[in-house]
Amino acid sequence: MKGRPLEIDIPEIRAEVEAAFARYEQALVTNDVPVLEELFRDAPETIRYGAAENLYGMEEIRAFRRARPAMGLERRLERTVITTFGRDFAVANTMFRRENAPGRLGRQSQSWVRFPEGWRVVAAHVSVVPE
Amino acid sequence: MKGRPLEIDIPEIRAEVEAAFARYEQALVTNDVPVLEELFRDAPETIRYGAAENLYGMEEIRAFRRARPAMGLERRLERTVITTFGRDFAVANTMFRRENAPGRLGRQSQSWVRFPEGWRVVAAHVSVVPE
Repeated sequence: MKGRPLEIDIPEIRAEVEAAFARYEQALVTNDVPVLEELFRDAPETIRYGAAENLYGMEEIRAFRRARPAMGLERRLERTVITTFGRDFAVANTMFRRENAPGRLGRQSQSWVRFPEGWRVVAAHVSVVPE
Repeated sequence: MKGRPLEIDIPEIRAEVEAAFARYEQALVTNDVPVLEELFRDAPETIRYGAAENLYGMEEIRAFRRARPAMGLERRLERTVITTFGRDFAVANTMFRRENAPGRLGRQSQSWVRFPEGWRVVAAHVSVVPE
C-alpha cells in the first residue's frame, strides 16, 4: 500500500470511532469496568499511561481498573478531536476537567485500531497538569 | 477491509517505524527543529500534549518548537515499546529520565501513520510524573 494516501475522516469510519469513544466515556464516568476492559485490546502490547500509573499489557490495565475507586469520576470534556486514517485506525484526543479537581486540566490521548471484534484502544495516555 | 485482521508487527514495517522513532529521538535531544517538524504531520488535526502545553495543529506545534530552549534535552529512554498494525499505522510508547530532573519520570506516546512522504506522528502526548 506504499504510496497510496490514506483517506482522512471517511464519514462512516469517523462515526464508528465517535460511537466507540462515546461508549468508552460513558463507561469511564460510570465505572463500567466490563466495558472499559472490552474497549482496550486484550494483548500484552497494550499500554496505558495514567495520571499516576504506567501500565504495560492488559493484565496490568485490568488489575488497575478493578482496584479503582468508583467515586468522583464525572468529568467535562473540552476540545475533543477525533481523526481517522483509512478505515482501520484513529486517534482521539481530549482535555477534561473534574469539579472535584479545580485548577487542574486533564489530557487524554487514545489510539484506536479496528479488529474483527470491533474498535479497540491499543495505547492510551492520561495526564493532569496545573492550569 | 472489515473483518480482515490487521497483521501486527510485520518485521519490515516495524523496522521502518523504529528507524523513524530513532530519528525523532536524535532530533529531540539535539534540538534539530527541522527534523522534529518534518516528522510531525503538517496538518491542523495534528495534536501534541506536552509536559506543560496543549498544542492543537501544526502551527502551534511549530511555534512551540521554535521557541523552545535548547539546553538540557538529553534523556535516557526506558521500556520503549513500538507496535505496528498493518502496514500504515504504529504506536510508540516510552518512558524517560533526565539527569537534570531527578525523581521525575517522563512518559511519551506517539501515534504514527504512513503517508506517501513517509511515516509521520499524527498525535503525541508527553507528561512527567513524580516517581
